[in-house]
Amino acid sequence: MTDKLSSPSMFIGIKQENLISFGSGQPDMPPPKGIYDILPKYTNFAYGLIQGEEKLRNSLRSEFLNQDADKDNFVITNGASEAIDLTFRSICKPKDKILIHAPYYYSYPPLLKANHIEPVITETIGGRIQIDDVEQKIHECKAILINSPSNPTGRIQEIKTLKEIEKLAKDLGKVIISDEVYKDLIYERENYMLSGDHVITINSFSKTFSMCGFRIGYLYSNDKSIVKRAIDIKTHSSMNTNILAQQMAIEALKTPKSVIEEQRVRWENRRDTIYKGLQDLGLDLWKPEGAFYVFPKIKNPRKTVWELYKNHDVITYLGEWFGSPNRIRLSYALETDKIEEGLRRIKNYINNT
Amino acid sequence: MTDKLSSPSMFIGIKQENLISFGSGQPDMPPPKGIYDILPKYTNFAYGLIQGEEKLRNSLRSEFLNQDADKDNFVITNGASEAIDLTFRSICKPKDKILIHAPYYYSYPPLLKANHIEPVITETIGGRIQIDDVEQKIHECKAILINSPSNPTGRIQEIKTLKEIEKLAKDLGKVIISDEVYKDLIYERENYMLSGDHVITINSFSKTFSMCGFRIGYLYSNDKSIVKRAIDIKTHSSMNTNILAQQMAIEALKTPKSVIEEQRVRWENRRDTIYKGLQDLGLDLWKPEGAFYVFPKIKNPRKTVWELYKNHDVITYLGEWFGSPNRIRLSYALETDKIEEGLRRIKNYINNT
Repeated sequence: MTDKLSSPSMFIGIKQENLISFGSGQPDMPPPKGIYDILPKYTNFAYGLIQGEEKLRNSLRSEFLNQDADKDNFVITNGASEAIDLTFRSICKPKDKILIHAPYYYSYPPLLKANHIEPVITETIGGRIQIDDVEQKIHECKAILINSPSNPTGRIQEIKTLKEIEKLAKDLGKVIISDEVYKDLIYERENYMLSGDHVITINSFSKTFSMCGFRIGYLYSNDKSIVKRAIDIKTHSSMNTNILAQQMAIEALKTPKSVIEEQRVRWENRRDTIYKGLQDLGLDLWKPEGAFYVFPKIKNPRKTVWELYKNHDVITYLGEWFGSPNRIRLSYALETDKIEEGLRRIKNYINNT
Repeated sequence: MTDKLSSPSMFIGIKQENLISFGSGQPDMPPPKGIYDILPKYTNFAYGLIQGEEKLRNSLRSEFLNQDADKDNFVITNGASEAIDLTFRSICKPKDKILIHAPYYYSYPPLLKANHIEPVITETIGGRIQIDDVEQKIHECKAILINSPSNPTGRIQEIKTLKEIEKLAKDLGKVIISDEVYKDLIYERENYMLSGDHVITINSFSKTFSMCGFRIGYLYSNDKSIVKRAIDIKTHSSMNTNILAQQMAIEALKTPKSVIEEQRVRWENRRDTIYKGLQDLGLDLWKPEGAFYVFPKIKNPRKTVWELYKNHDVITYLGEWFGSPNRIRLSYALETDKIEEGLRRIKNYINNT
């Protein structure tokens, strides 16, 4: 039966009594109340600008403190997913290559494949990018895709490494695609935002503002020709992003930074709970520095994920979906008491097999 | 300056005092009131099923009266645009060919190009598909894309022709992609819905329910392997379609058929107004039988479209965007008094050039 574990999509959207899901990257904390306040009086229904509402793009400039971001260089998308897809489609042709670091977010390889792009893999050590390996492999690639903090490892890259990659890509004329959807969820330092004319930044309202189901993300590039190509494709592939969700996103951006910081502290406490809990079970894992995932090594991962689900109502994700077959991924986007209940069930399972 | 007329996207979302837009295919009649009634109490925010909400897929079965549609064979998408894009991505690899009839909806060629698929063109006569030409050209193609009623011609295909295409495609093992977004806007007969195991039906809530900006569409296929591939790609390229818009779509489907029929009669009256108006100006055009577009021949189309916009505040679309360089497209998705004012401006322009 474990052959049913084909991809994470089998677990997405499942609702089931008594289930503890360490599966999806869906924050349980609700979005800012303000996004609902505009609903009762909402009446618009017409097509919007393909690029996204001007007011939203203007508000997003505050997210880019270290650069002078231009509102006309954002494209509002159906989540970070569409932003990444549009980026691939805008900069690559079939058989081009993109360098990604493993373990990687599970969508990258299939999305590259859907665009006939070949992934080139650089293995991380302890979740850290090895710059020597990047230096070797980047030559054959059109771009490098950086995801720090990383899903699934929860690790962040050292600022020194990120600066080296910035310089390397600039010198060689390579594009950096920087997927920073967890930028507001770092426990060890401030975010270092990759920047420069060769950087395409990807972000979303799903993690910071819990707006997953509304599918609001964006891409940003200083390079107007890339922005134009992305808009040209989106004109035909999906048109404007949902106009109401964009208005809700404008409200979300009014959230005080102090509230985002309070959330971060709650995430950090959960991180501590699950990290200690899994350590106490004797599992080998990295301490998460950002995002909300732990990625322990485990024996018989396929059997473990299946039996935890079928016999203990616990969802976890297979490490092989992320390029790491001897691990499993647990999201800790759950209340602490649910995390603790999940840990008890995992302990029970481990002790009885 | 007419070289600025690069694509319709330059006109999409423009708001301007005194403008008469015969441009976008955005109905001016508001959506069913019910879609707004659910907003005040709406609270959900989590990821939804990639395939779409089960309740919505179940409700959509009523749109498929001539077949026993399975709710598990729908995929809810970001408008018909994403449904077509996902279809191309699901059935084709680079260098495959798809047969389209010209004049065609302007998104088809760029969307084929974005997927590295080659368009093969069959020219219509008087807007009617020539089956002999289809019979010759379909052999080299993976699929044929049918759009009846047609944007931009406003013409429908004869039922005899549609049945011949159904049989031809079935016999040769070709896919039919049937873009039926104007199925509820036919003035001459009932819709004939293409059907069979080799048919992928595309539809949307944009035209019948005026929900353009919310981006809700879908694809349907009896072939579960195609449905699965579409879901697999969407899992990574955009995830679930906006969850709130899906709830609104469920409400829209509660609209009585009599209301849809009343709308159709209003569209028909507008059709009569603009058709007679343009005939009176001496223009050569087909009588629209469906959708809400007229597609007259015109001298100097590029100059005409540009000057109507810059000097007379009238938006029209260039025929060349639709594969027909000696015509322009006018949408009549406008109140009758605006159609009449637009006709006066066009008359004024024509008489003074």
